[in-house]
Amino acid sequence: MNKRLKIIPIGGLGEIGKNMTVLEYGRNMIIVDCGIKFPENDMYGIDLVLPDFDYIVKNKDKLRGIVLTHGHMDHIGGLPYLLKEVMAPVYGTDLTLGMVRRQLDEAGLGKKATLQKIDDKETIHIGPFQVSPFAVAHSIPASVGLVIDTPVGAVVHTGDYKLDETPAGGRTTDLKRLRELTPKGVLALLADSTNADRPGRTPTEQLVTSALDILFAEARGGRIIIATFSSVLARFQEIVHLAAKHHRKLALTGRSLIQNVELARELGHLKIPEGMLVDIKAKVPEGDLVILSTGSQGEPKSALNRMAKGEHRDVHVHAGDTIIMSGGAIEGNEEHVGRMLNHLFGRGANVIYGAMATVHVSGHGSREDMRIMMDAVRPRFLIPVHGETRHLHLHSRLAGISGLASKSVFILENGATWVSDGQTAWLEEPVGIKDVWVDGSLVGEIGDRVVQDRERLSQNGFVLCYVPIDKQRKLAGEVRLFSQGFLQMDTSGTLMEEAKRNLKRALKKNGCHPRENVRKTLQDFFYNETQSRPVILPHIVTVLAAPALATPRQSS
Amino acid sequence: MNKRLKIIPIGGLGEIGKNMTVLEYGRNMIIVDCGIKFPENDMYGIDLVLPDFDYIVKNKDKLRGIVLTHGHMDHIGGLPYLLKEVMAPVYGTDLTLGMVRRQLDEAGLGKKATLQKIDDKETIHIGPFQVSPFAVAHSIPASVGLVIDTPVGAVVHTGDYKLDETPAGGRTTDLKRLRELTPKGVLALLADSTNADRPGRTPTEQLVTSALDILFAEARGGRIIIATFSSVLARFQEIVHLAAKHHRKLALTGRSLIQNVELARELGHLKIPEGMLVDIKAKVPEGDLVILSTGSQGEPKSALNRMAKGEHRDVHVHAGDTIIMSGGAIEGNEEHVGRMLNHLFGRGANVIYGAMATVHVSGHGSREDMRIMMDAVRPRFLIPVHGETRHLHLHSRLAGISGLASKSVFILENGATWVSDGQTAWLEEPVGIKDVWVDGSLVGEIGDRVVQDRERLSQNGFVLCYVPIDKQRKLAGEVRLFSQGFLQMDTSGTLMEEAKRNLKRALKKNGCHPRENVRKTLQDFFYNETQSRPVILPHIVTVLAAPALATPRQSS
Repeated sequence: MNKRLKIIPIGGLGEIGKNMTVLEYGRNMIIVDCGIKFPENDMYGIDLVLPDFDYIVKNKDKLRGIVLTHGHMDHIGGLPYLLKEVMAPVYGTDLTLGMVRRQLDEAGLGKKATLQKIDDKETIHIGPFQVSPFAVAHSIPASVGLVIDTPVGAVVHTGDYKLDETPAGGRTTDLKRLRELTPKGVLALLADSTNADRPGRTPTEQLVTSALDILFAEARGGRIIIATFSSVLARFQEIVHLAAKHHRKLALTGRSLIQNVELARELGHLKIPEGMLVDIKAKVPEGDLVILSTGSQGEPKSALNRMAKGEHRDVHVHAGDTIIMSGGAIEGNEEHVGRMLNHLFGRGANVIYGAMATVHVSGHGSREDMRIMMDAVRPRFLIPVHGETRHLHLHSRLAGISGLASKSVFILENGATWVSDGQTAWLEEPVGIKDVWVDGSLVGEIGDRVVQDRERLSQNGFVLCYVPIDKQRKLAGEVRLFSQGFLQMDTSGTLMEEAKRNLKRALKKNGCHPRENVRKTLQDFFYNETQSRPVILPHIVTVLAAPALATPRQSS
Repeated sequence: MNKRLKIIPIGGLGEIGKNMTVLEYGRNMIIVDCGIKFPENDMYGIDLVLPDFDYIVKNKDKLRGIVLTHGHMDHIGGLPYLLKEVMAPVYGTDLTLGMVRRQLDEAGLGKKATLQKIDDKETIHIGPFQVSPFAVAHSIPASVGLVIDTPVGAVVHTGDYKLDETPAGGRTTDLKRLRELTPKGVLALLADSTNADRPGRTPTEQLVTSALDILFAEARGGRIIIATFSSVLARFQEIVHLAAKHHRKLALTGRSLIQNVELARELGHLKIPEGMLVDIKAKVPEGDLVILSTGSQGEPKSALNRMAKGEHRDVHVHAGDTIIMSGGAIEGNEEHVGRMLNHLFGRGANVIYGAMATVHVSGHGSREDMRIMMDAVRPRFLIPVHGETRHLHLHSRLAGISGLASKSVFILENGATWVSDGQTAWLEEPVGIKDVWVDGSLVGEIGDRVVQDRERLSQNGFVLCYVPIDKQRKLAGEVRLFSQGFLQMDTSGTLMEEAKRNLKRALKKNGCHPRENVRKTLQDFFYNETQSRPVILPHIVTVLAAPALATPRQSS
């Protein structure tokens, strides 16, 4: 009974983000990654989504450690929340731990947590698990995949990877070491599925360098502003090389970017020649300057969006500027990015984006890369991870083409309990998993119901109806209506007066009692008049006598 | 003074949709197109956006006619609204008028409007304007561009077009006739800019036919479900041919699709062999059936999305089905489409989308097509139309490469008044233009303020605070709080009690009077406790005595 390995994906399956996987053997548990997910557009007011830590908390006695593959938020962003509930040593490469430390410090957990540095040369022993990281090429330096040796066989977790023979920073995905680490074969491969709908191979980062080189040459005399993710640190080194080649200084704008550059320099992952880095306020001729900026997703408060709206303190975009969008729009951000681009063009800048030049490539392998990974690992079982449902299915079909029998491929959902004795594998009772939403300082207190209410309010606002009644449930004063998000108050006067008359008639006819009477009367009236359905809030108050006509000021 | 042509874009510049252009000469005005725009994701509760008809209404004495280029909603959808305010003859090709008539009938205007059929062979005379349509290839049959001869020179309006030598339905863009119609050259070219950020040429529709042919062959034994825009009628004929070739019946689902197919058949733009079209409920072996469906944008109530959610009455998606997404996601719809795809994969279907096969090509020309159009027309002035700001700018730069001086290119905004005497051109005082939002049956009554309120409500909901006071402005009963979209009511009890105590203390200290006191106290309290800012609605009511504790039921 104990000779069984369990793998439980807590997050990251059927979705992009909040990646987190549990491995259990007997009374020992390790966690791989603990990320967050950014909310979808219709998760009104939600700041971020966490994995569900319930299962971990319930089994915290078993928890031996948390191993991180790389420093992106969808892999480490949940840690401060997790470590508030359970403590365990955190393992990661130097840069990953640097990113983690900053987060933990901000959350006031910096002193309590134990962070243990790992690298791609050594194996660490965590209970019955021997964890051997191997280098992978990804858009942040010091990324690793993991070979996790267990008593029933080896598990390979790819982390996020691409296969790139000429990556930025020179860190290739080390398939040779991966094979050396798995002499007895691989029981299960947990493999990144992000780009399972992209045919062929993900182009090399070298293409971006070449495209940027041409744009640098063409921008003669003008500023170059490059917008990117603040965490695509691997590309920064190439930009530094290009700046040197084209005799330009480099300035940074955007808080997270400045922090990340500082961290990467400290740890030796980014080398900037003496004198190249200047303050964003420095007086440098425009033709001699590159600005690296946050904002490739059009985030409202990012540096580039502030430039677009003319609100950036130090950078005023104008004709002659070349702005390079070196980061693809993430699903759901397209409208924001599009609007920002419009503003930048409106200011006269030459903006390079989309299909106009290869100024961005993905950090994840495409279908052909996935096939190569499967062929290199030749696992007994494949568990596609990191991807929406469609990506998991497409990855699984690709496995079929590669010769894996369909019963060897497990398309799991978050909370699924995958079990193996080293020979066969099966599913046991899943762990209940829900999304945990963060809104301000509230963690998990906001649920579907609240967000549905927010959605309803966002569509047609509300009408509050104040009905004073006496003890005989007779109208005992003036009905008052107040609306927000429904109609312009200054044009809605007549409609509101008509609604009140309507309501008074209904109240006389049917009695004041039932809230439903008020709600229904107003709902029908407004729907007939406007084809809209504001939320109706009947506020029936028993008073001793007619209240004086007074506030609220905005009442109609 | 009278020898001047004015061109006023009312909509369609700096945006995709609600295309509408006014041409004026002396006391004569014609309108080209009258479309709607679909709302962006943050236009909360707005159903659609109309062009601003103010200028037209003010100058309705001048209006001689409305000429339509094709039957897509972004070119004709505003007509029912416009014709309610001003009447004028409407000119369009047979299919365009068919689409218009259906809309006008639904709006109860069918009998009042005068619809005049035009084709690409004849010139019509409208006041001083001689309008000669020419055939263009686009994703709906019977599309035209317009050569509009005016006393000061010819204006060419391309409408929406692509250059496709092997288009669906065989209708190519007739550059030869365009040149014949403009023997004295062209004063101004108003040219489609939609794809100005796509390099090269838009691929021919023939590629889609070839890709579909392969997929039809591979789907042996299973159903084929093709999702597309209901108005991409040009592609339907090719699908019919393929169905015939592969011996499949054709069923339709989606109201707009069924209507459009019926209309196109009536007018001879779509030929379906006898016996091929079957009802969606018909018992046909799955391997012998193609279903054409709406829903390529993931619209919540579309046929395909209902299939994805398992809510379609007649079509239950399962393994063996091949679903082909033959329509690109429009900006802002990506999340909806993505979610729908996940559901379809989850049901076991094989879904073809995105880069996996060329199952969709754009109906608009790309940069190289635009360059060819400019070279064919060689206008004195270029006015890029139909595109967001970035597209207009990119189109304008392309003109520079083609040899047009930058002073010959006008990047206009909606409402700009472009004036020419036939030799030179300049801008005069712009016409004030605003977006007119439609929400239910309300047209133009909802403004920024209301939508901002909706946005605020969508983020953190509201807290309503009922404060009964007496004539001395002293608290005269229990303070009551009611919230919606803020916190789960069942978990917020303690917080609400604490908020009430806090508020009572503040009221005692500072007096009950100022609404601002109530608002500020609660706002600060909730922000400190939750880092959220719900809308605070103080409802201060003067009562004669303490009200009995009663409703509202949901009060906390």
